[in-house]
Amino acid sequence: MTDFVATHRLTHEATMKMLAAGVAKADEIGVKISLAVCDQSCQLLGYLVMDGARFFAGRTTTKKAMTAASQRLATGYAPPENAISMQIRMDGDFTNVRGGFPIIVDGQVIGGIGAGGASQEEDVIVAKAALAALGLPEAN
Amino acid sequence: MTDFVATHRLTHEATMKMLAAGVAKADEIGVKISLAVCDQSCQLLGYLVMDGARFFAGRTTTKKAMTAASQRLATGYAPPENAISMQIRMDGDFTNVRGGFPIIVDGQVIGGIGAGGASQEEDVIVAKAALAALGLPEAN
Amino acid sequence: MTDFVATHRLTHEATMKMLAAGVAKADEIGVKISLAVCDQSCQLLGYLVMDGARFFAGRTTTKKAMTAASQRLATGYAPPENAISMQIRMDGDFTNVRGGFPIIVDGQVIGGIGAGGASQEEDVIVAKAALAALGLPEAN
Amino acid sequence: MTDFVATHRLTHEATMKMLAAGVAKADEIGVKISLAVCDQSCQLLGYLVMDGARFFAGRTTTKKAMTAASQRLATGYAPPENAISMQIRMDGDFTNVRGGFPIIVDGQVIGGIGAGGASQEEDVIVAKAALAALGLPEAN
Repeated sequence: MTDFVATHRLTHEATMKMLAAGVAKADEIGVKISLAVCDQSCQLLGYLVMDGARFFAGRTTTKKAMTAASQRLATGYAPPENAISMQIRMDGDFTNVRGGFPIIVDGQVIGGIGAGGASQEEDVIVAKAALAALGLPEAN
Repeated sequence: MTDFVATHRLTHEATMKMLAAGVAKADEIGVKISLAVCDQSCQLLGYLVMDGARFFAGRTTTKKAMTAASQRLATGYAPPENAISMQIRMDGDFTNVRGGFPIIVDGQVIGGIGAGGASQEEDVIVAKAALAALGLPEAN
Repeated sequence: MTDFVATHRLTHEATMKMLAAGVAKADEIGVKISLAVCDQSCQLLGYLVMDGARFFAGRTTTKKAMTAASQRLATGYAPPENAISMQIRMDGDFTNVRGGFPIIVDGQVIGGIGAGGASQEEDVIVAKAALAALGLPEAN
Repeated sequence: MTDFVATHRLTHEATMKMLAAGVAKADEIGVKISLAVCDQSCQLLGYLVMDGARFFAGRTTTKKAMTAASQRLATGYAPPENAISMQIRMDGDFTNVRGGFPIIVDGQVIGGIGAGGASQEEDVIVAKAALAALGLPEAN
């Protein structure tokens, strides 16, 4: 038992890399999305709305990053019949829509990345491309 | 790659025309409704409650305008089984009830118009009449 | 003692007249404002943002209409040293900025009109013009 | 009298340029800041927190961008004795702290940029560097 545990923080260089890589992938596959990066406490570190992205997508995207960082899982893992109850229980910040991934360094979740505004399959491709910019593995 | 994209803003003359045309149509078909007009960022530009309209209709109406402006689609497009989850995910501002239409100029969505308080069919008739006052086509 | 008191409600025709008259006066004196009309319960009946008006003005304008309807006085009546305390006490909806007037019919306050976004003197001119469209006297 | 007014939207390329230029300037002068970019309706388009920046700075920074976009002025313009009342009146989103600038294209305000977390003088330097990345003039 110790008082402190060594961990890592995401730098803004990392956040900017993720935003840039996500936008590049979105451009490549021809979609307009928004991107959000949050820290291990689910607080926003970076955010970007592509021109032409849906206004509400920004809200969903932030929730994807928060959900992945909190739950330490890629979003979309919950049984569909549980989703609405979980959304309400977590004050509206939980989402079961795919496109969010935890950011894992040395076995610890230090944040989350979310992409939203296209189809769930496309959102996943964009979020994975953002994560790959850091050379990190995907969670499940 | 550019820093700026040319677009249009809705003037208050246009907003007033839409409110007046919506009320005229509501009077013609004998319903009491509320009307809301928002900009491309889902912020309210104009609002009118007809005397005799239901109090809660004002809330729904604003959400119809916001949803159409954000999603770039006429409201009511989502599969019914997704609607409640989407409402929570978009912080209560999404609605799947018909009566909201995007305002499209030169192929770009620059806002939304919503009508609410009567039946969905009647709300659609009123919202379309408001949109027609600007000589604009309806989105699907 | 009776159970009910006869009163009046503002119709949407009246609300539209006020919005139109306020805009016409704003155009005449060359300012960009927003206008709000509320009922005797401080609930929004009509709202219009002129193109070019400041975004935050919409919030202030609504508070002017609410304050006038609630307090049954033209806004700006409070001693300046009391204003902040009153703003907090009334959950942020009270304002001491001029440009709001109660709408008085047969000696009863049935709503409020507010104009905002220009100087206080100009806001007052616009709000009075809106009120005059109904042929009503100004409060104090 | 027209229904539509031509204007511009900020692209995400422009937003990314501003974030990158702001961070570069902050690095150069040795401060840790957060940056926010919003559109003409005060809605967030981009956001970045530098590693080491104060948590609350993110909130202030967003308000600087919103205030500049709404009021069409660099932040800090209000007489100090009015600031608290204005903060409440504008629902907490107004700030009188320097470090926010409107983004002006062809004479129209199409958004705002804010920097926060260092001294006001340093925040101003960072925000101006972000704005300069677009080759735009500063407001007042």
